[in-house]
Amino acid sequence: MAAFHPLAASRVRISPLLPAASAATAPVYACAAPYSRRRRFSAIVATAAAAAAATEFDFNTYMGEKAAAVNRALDASIPADEPPASLHEAMRYALLAGGKRVRPALCLAACAVVGGREAWAMPAAAAVEMVHTMSLVHDDLPCMDDDDLRRGKPTCHVVYGEPIAVLTGDALLSLSFHHMARTDSYPPDVDADKHPARVVRSIGELARCIGSEGLVAGQVVDLEMTGSAEPVPIDRLEYIHLHKTAALLEASVVIGAILGGGSDEQIERLRKYARSIGLLFQVVDDILDVTKSSEELGKTAGKDLASDKTTYPKLLGLEKSREFAERLLSDARGQLSGFDKEKAAPLLHLANYIAYRQN
Amino acid sequence: MAAFHPLAASRVRISPLLPAASAATAPVYACAAPYSRRRRFSAIVATAAAAAAATEFDFNTYMGEKAAAVNRALDASIPADEPPASLHEAMRYALLAGGKRVRPALCLAACAVVGGREAWAMPAAAAVEMVHTMSLVHDDLPCMDDDDLRRGKPTCHVVYGEPIAVLTGDALLSLSFHHMARTDSYPPDVDADKHPARVVRSIGELARCIGSEGLVAGQVVDLEMTGSAEPVPIDRLEYIHLHKTAALLEASVVIGAILGGGSDEQIERLRKYARSIGLLFQVVDDILDVTKSSEELGKTAGKDLASDKTTYPKLLGLEKSREFAERLLSDARGQLSGFDKEKAAPLLHLANYIAYRQN
Repeated sequence: MAAFHPLAASRVRISPLLPAASAATAPVYACAAPYSRRRRFSAIVATAAAAAAATEFDFNTYMGEKAAAVNRALDASIPADEPPASLHEAMRYALLAGGKRVRPALCLAACAVVGGREAWAMPAAAAVEMVHTMSLVHDDLPCMDDDDLRRGKPTCHVVYGEPIAVLTGDALLSLSFHHMARTDSYPPDVDADKHPARVVRSIGELARCIGSEGLVAGQVVDLEMTGSAEPVPIDRLEYIHLHKTAALLEASVVIGAILGGGSDEQIERLRKYARSIGLLFQVVDDILDVTKSSEELGKTAGKDLASDKTTYPKLLGLEKSREFAERLLSDARGQLSGFDKEKAAPLLHLANYIAYRQN
Repeated sequence: MAAFHPLAASRVRISPLLPAASAATAPVYACAAPYSRRRRFSAIVATAAAAAAATEFDFNTYMGEKAAAVNRALDASIPADEPPASLHEAMRYALLAGGKRVRPALCLAACAVVGGREAWAMPAAAAVEMVHTMSLVHDDLPCMDDDDLRRGKPTCHVVYGEPIAVLTGDALLSLSFHHMARTDSYPPDVDADKHPARVVRSIGELARCIGSEGLVAGQVVDLEMTGSAEPVPIDRLEYIHLHKTAALLEASVVIGAILGGGSDEQIERLRKYARSIGLLFQVVDDILDVTKSSEELGKTAGKDLASDKTTYPKLLGLEKSREFAERLLSDARGQLSGFDKEKAAPLLHLANYIAYRQN
C-alpha cells in the first residue's frame, strides 16, 4: 500500500509503525527547507539512527506488549457484570475500543528511562488513557463536536445515548484518580517512604492537565474559534493544541518520570520532550486529516476542512506544516540526549512514531 | 413565619437553622411512631440537648463562618480574569452561587472532631463543594434532568450554553483533585511524614464517591427509573440516594477525619454517622419537594411529583418518611457518642440541621 506520509513531500512506502532507522533516512529530511538548527538536527538524526541500530529496538513489539499490558489493567479496572450495568458497559465500550495507547506507552517509557520499574507507573498509564477516553467521549457529544465515529466505531452517545455518554465521561474521569490513589493499584516494591508524595505530585499533574489549564481550556477555545468569521491567528491555534492535545501527553510523560523516581532535572527535561511531541502530535493530526480517508483514520476525515476549522495546513500550508513538525521532532529528540541510550529508545521511537504515524 | 417542618406531623414554628436544643424538644419526637430503638433514641436526644446547652453552640454563627472561609477558598481557586475567560466565568458562576456549604462544613467539622486543625481540611472542604457543584451542573443538563433553576438562579447551561456547561463540570471535577493534590493548598504545619499518605487516601475516597460507585451510579439508576411504568422498589430508591447523595456526604466527613489525623476506628465511626445523615439528607429533600414552594427551595419544587419520580413520600407516605428520617437522625447521633462533646457539637448540629432544614 502506498501510504501518504504526513511529513513527506511525496507519497513514499512506509509502514504504519515505522522503525526509527528507516524514519531517519526517509526523504522527509532531504526535502526540508533549511532552518537555523539544521546542523544540530542532522546530528540528532544520526544519533537516533545509531541508537536504534545499536539497541535493535523493535518498536512494533514494544507497543504491542505495552498496549496488551495496559488493556489488561483497563479491563480489570471496570467490572463487566456489576451494577450499574449500563454505565459499566458504556465505560468499557469507550475505554476498550482499541486505540494505540500512545499516552500509556509514554508514561511507562518515561518511568523506565529514569530507572523505575514499569509496574510502578502502570496505574498512571491506565489513568491517562481513562482521561484521554473521557475527553473523547465528551468532545464527541452532539452539543460539542458532534462526531458519530471514533476509533472506527460509533461514538459512545450514538450507542448509549447522550445522558449516559456525559456520565460515562464523568465516571472515567473520577476512576482515573481513584485508580491512581488506590494503594492496591501499585506493586509492593514501591519506595514506602517516597511513594505517597510521588502519587500526590502525579495526581496534581494529571488533574492540572484536564481542566482550565489543559484539555477543557483547549476545547473551550477550539469551540469559540469554530465557525468564527475571524481568521485564527497561529498563537491561538497553538494555544488550542498545547491545551487540547499536548497537555495530557506532557502529563503522561511527567507522571511516569515522577513515579519512576526521576530527579527534578530529569522530570523537567522529559517535560520539554513531551511538550514538543505533544504539539507534534496535533500538527501531524491536522496533516492526516487533510491527506487521509475516513477508513484509514478510523474517524471522520476531512472534518476540519468541512467545518472550516483552522488547522496548521490551512494556516501554514502543507509544506510549512511538515517543516514545523520536523523541528518539533528534532527538539524532542534533543531532550533525550542526556539519558541512557538503550533506556531512551522507547521514547525516541515514540517521538518518531508520532511524527510518522498513518492514523 | 409558619414554616412547614419536614419531620413534624403538623406545622410548627421553627427557624431555618434550628439550634439543637429546640430541635430536641420539637414536637417531631413526641408524635413519632414507636420503634425498637426508642429508648436509645430518647437518651440520645437528651444527651444532644444537654451537650448543646453545655457548649452553648451557635450553629448559625458556625455555619456562617465556615461558609465564608470556604467561599474565600473557592473564590481564590478560580482566577476571574485569566483565559479562558468564558470557562472561568461559568465555573465561578456555578461554584459561587451561594449554597449552604453543608459538605465543606461536614469536612471541617470531622477534621476538628478527631483533633485536627480545620485548615488541614480546607482544601478538601473546597474540593467536595467543587464535586457537588459539578454534579449539579451535569445533572441539570437538558439531556439529563433538564432543570432551569438552581440555588435560585438560572442553571449553568441556561446562562452559558450546553457545551460550556459540560466542560464546566469537567473542569470543576479535575480542579477538585488538583486543589487537593497541590502542596501549596495546605498550611505548613501538616505532619510532613504522614500528610502525603493522608492526601492520597483522601483523594481515593473522593474519587470513589463520584463515579460508578457513587454520584454517577446514583444518577444512572435514577434516570433509568424516571418515567418507568414499573413501581420502584424501596431498595432501588435507597440505592439511588445512597449513591447520588449520601456518597459525597460520606466522603466529605471521612476525608475530613483522614486529613485531621483520625484513627481508623474514628474514621469508620464517622463514616457510619455520614451514611445516616446522607440518606437523611435525601429523605428530607424528598419531603421538602412535596411540601415547599419553588421560591422557598430556590429550585423547581414539585418536580419529582410532576415527573412521576419515585420518592420516599410517594413510596412510604409522608408520615412513614418522617419516621424513617428520625431513625436515621438517631443513628447518626449515636455514632458521635464516643467523641469529645464540645468537639462533636458541630457534627451533632449539622445532623440536626439536615433533618430540620427548610430548603
